[in-house]
Amino acid sequence: MSDETVKYLLSESDIPTHWVNLLPDLPGDPVPPLNPATMEPAGPPDLTPIFPMSLIEQEVSPEPEVEIPEPVREVYKLWRPTPLYRARRFERDIGTRAHIYYKYEGVSPAGSHKPNSAVAQAYANQQAGVRSLVTETGAGQWGSALALACRMFGLECLIYMVGVSYDQKPYRRSMMETWGASVLRSPSDTTDAGRAQASHPTGSLGIAISEAVEVAAGDDESNYALGSVLNHVCLHQTVIGQEAMAQIPEEPDVVVGCVGGGSNFAGVSFPYVRRVLRGEAKTRFVAAEPAACPTLTRGAYRYDFGDTVGLTPLMPMYTLGHDFVPPPVHAGGLRYHGDAPLLCGLVKAGVIEARAYRQNETFEAAVRFAGTEGIIPAPEPAHAIRAVFEEAEAAKQAGEARVILLNLCGHGHFDLAAYDAYLAGELEDPEFSEADMDAALARLPEDVPAIA
Amino acid sequence: MSDETVKYLLSESDIPTHWVNLLPDLPGDPVPPLNPATMEPAGPPDLTPIFPMSLIEQEVSPEPEVEIPEPVREVYKLWRPTPLYRARRFERDIGTRAHIYYKYEGVSPAGSHKPNSAVAQAYANQQAGVRSLVTETGAGQWGSALALACRMFGLECLIYMVGVSYDQKPYRRSMMETWGASVLRSPSDTTDAGRAQASHPTGSLGIAISEAVEVAAGDDESNYALGSVLNHVCLHQTVIGQEAMAQIPEEPDVVVGCVGGGSNFAGVSFPYVRRVLRGEAKTRFVAAEPAACPTLTRGAYRYDFGDTVGLTPLMPMYTLGHDFVPPPVHAGGLRYHGDAPLLCGLVKAGVIEARAYRQNETFEAAVRFAGTEGIIPAPEPAHAIRAVFEEAEAAKQAGEARVILLNLCGHGHFDLAAYDAYLAGELEDPEFSEADMDAALARLPEDVPAIA
Repeated sequence: MSDETVKYLLSESDIPTHWVNLLPDLPGDPVPPLNPATMEPAGPPDLTPIFPMSLIEQEVSPEPEVEIPEPVREVYKLWRPTPLYRARRFERDIGTRAHIYYKYEGVSPAGSHKPNSAVAQAYANQQAGVRSLVTETGAGQWGSALALACRMFGLECLIYMVGVSYDQKPYRRSMMETWGASVLRSPSDTTDAGRAQASHPTGSLGIAISEAVEVAAGDDESNYALGSVLNHVCLHQTVIGQEAMAQIPEEPDVVVGCVGGGSNFAGVSFPYVRRVLRGEAKTRFVAAEPAACPTLTRGAYRYDFGDTVGLTPLMPMYTLGHDFVPPPVHAGGLRYHGDAPLLCGLVKAGVIEARAYRQNETFEAAVRFAGTEGIIPAPEPAHAIRAVFEEAEAAKQAGEARVILLNLCGHGHFDLAAYDAYLAGELEDPEFSEADMDAALARLPEDVPAIA
Repeated sequence: MSDETVKYLLSESDIPTHWVNLLPDLPGDPVPPLNPATMEPAGPPDLTPIFPMSLIEQEVSPEPEVEIPEPVREVYKLWRPTPLYRARRFERDIGTRAHIYYKYEGVSPAGSHKPNSAVAQAYANQQAGVRSLVTETGAGQWGSALALACRMFGLECLIYMVGVSYDQKPYRRSMMETWGASVLRSPSDTTDAGRAQASHPTGSLGIAISEAVEVAAGDDESNYALGSVLNHVCLHQTVIGQEAMAQIPEEPDVVVGCVGGGSNFAGVSFPYVRRVLRGEAKTRFVAAEPAACPTLTRGAYRYDFGDTVGLTPLMPMYTLGHDFVPPPVHAGGLRYHGDAPLLCGLVKAGVIEARAYRQNETFEAAVRFAGTEGIIPAPEPAHAIRAVFEEAEAAKQAGEARVILLNLCGHGHFDLAAYDAYLAGELEDPEFSEADMDAALARLPEDVPAIA
């Protein structure tokens, strides 16, 4: 048999039994979130109104591994282990000697990596006796994942969907409703936060988070669920990197992914990052983000709120300002003003390198990928594919072989309007300006401590 | 480990090396298509203007197995072998002791089983030196598959898309264009057939076939590709049933699938049908079709054209009349006036049982399936899921255990408008009336021989 196509499959018994917790391996003391009223580290009492204790414990766990509950692994088995491919056709098409591998998370029913955490969160809340989960969604990937997960564990699910996405992506809404979720357009008139933002009818992720947190905090039987940013969400995603490590037949020189809130990047990279932090490997890491929302490459490393209104603890992260509303690029999952604190710390420490890309160059890369590997990528991982192009080109210039591991975190079946615009030459290329940066800095919360 | 979710995976080396050809096992003499001008059996000279000789040979092959070319298997490896699942959550939800297994073909990049034949056809045409393939598509599944396959083998691809689908499903069009295909709205002004049907602006599959055949027949460097109905298309799909046979841990009592042109049903069932025809098994077969286009359950078993205008040979099949335009049900892939002659012969012989279902009852089944197994089915296999319900219920009434194999031939990511309408209670339930039947019979071609 020839080896034109090579994919690496695992059996169900190879689904990881533990999540990888990077916290104990990080250099220096942990940098905690702060209660904005006291500027003291936020503790369990700040979080119990919206999260179950088991997730709070995961958020601050000192253990290097956290066991995956068996009922969560059972749901994972609906689509995990996900396949790892060697992208030979793509390699040939772009004329590289580099070996490119991609882990494909789009095989989940919701179409992305998001259910890895949604299922874990729904289970934890069900075990805590919670009746309903409330969340926000932008592009719809997270909302779809949580709708699915709640259906699997018999929870109700209420989703505040960013207004512009609600209008532009009715099929994502239908998907959530098919799995039994209720979907409201944000800003809505169901919350104080929503009513206060009625003058921004297109909404934003930050506004939708404010609405969801408000509802969860005000209802004893409801909790909130966040699809990225927090430690426990990054933790849940590490099944991706662990599986990839078991599948890939050679050691990757560089691990590449896209970053919005950071969860898929954390998922593929943290098992490898741990080896680097322990001095066991010299893997490089490249985080790709949109030039229109360049948090890691241009943001300030500061304490800032996770939401627009300021209901969340202050998080230590690269931020463009909590009320920054990014331009409407199609990679809706990357339109967030901050990033996971864990990831930000690793960027600050020089372990992870960040790069920003314009919208058109990412779609150019995605169309080329689709034409060789078949899969049509979501606009978010299209950024990572652009970075793979660059890595392959750099390897060629350096006369090096290079092994690249890419996380292809979702398919683009609900993003074809964006492909349509790209193919018609009608896709805009917004970029974050110096004026945007000045305005962002001016809006950061004052009187917050520097990050230690 | 508990066994709440069980899926059966195969390795790439388990992808079948041969397709199963049912022709030599059929009882009696073969029933050939006829040249409508002479009423003599249509031979290679009738087909060479639009098909390469290797596919014509497959169409009439006397060999029980046909070798799959290695380059075709290499492309199959992008998504094959596809998983087989035991639907335990669904079983529990509907309260059955039956064991329900489903083969999931939606993991292909195009989202259905269609690439199994598209890849084989694109390869055969590339080997024959053809520059371009021309085809039609209704719901878009076949067009997407052929666009992908042509891209893989460096062929141009021109697709006539049924007008109403072109308007309602722009994202399927974008998908085909992302893979480099050209898509025209049918009826178009680029063909005589299209111009003659300008008074039917919504188009139909029959009209689009007429346009594509006309273009292919009139261009030496272009060929036509059909996504169902013909023997060689059914042949290519038999990888489904062969894999399922290798995966399923117990012998199925009944194999269930949906039928439009018949290719996915042929694919899952023919390897099992052969064992029945050889007296080696007693498997039952249930073909599910829409009540709005009830070809197998209400059609006449007659020679009829495959297209609206009458450009194709006369095919021996159950037909509602070649110019019947089915109501616009969302299962666009099932809106065809005829069916694969191989399949029709097996229905006539009593080997396969056909049942027709209303639109709303199929979506009810599909939503229940999505809520337990996660995958959102396309409207076409939703008909098969409805039939699985009935089989499970019949087993309960009979106090029997029953093993059911379902072909879940595609996902519903491009059909969520239909789910939206169903959930809103706005889905219509068109049915084929007695008047429709009378009109259909009156329109059948006259002076054709009876089927022997």
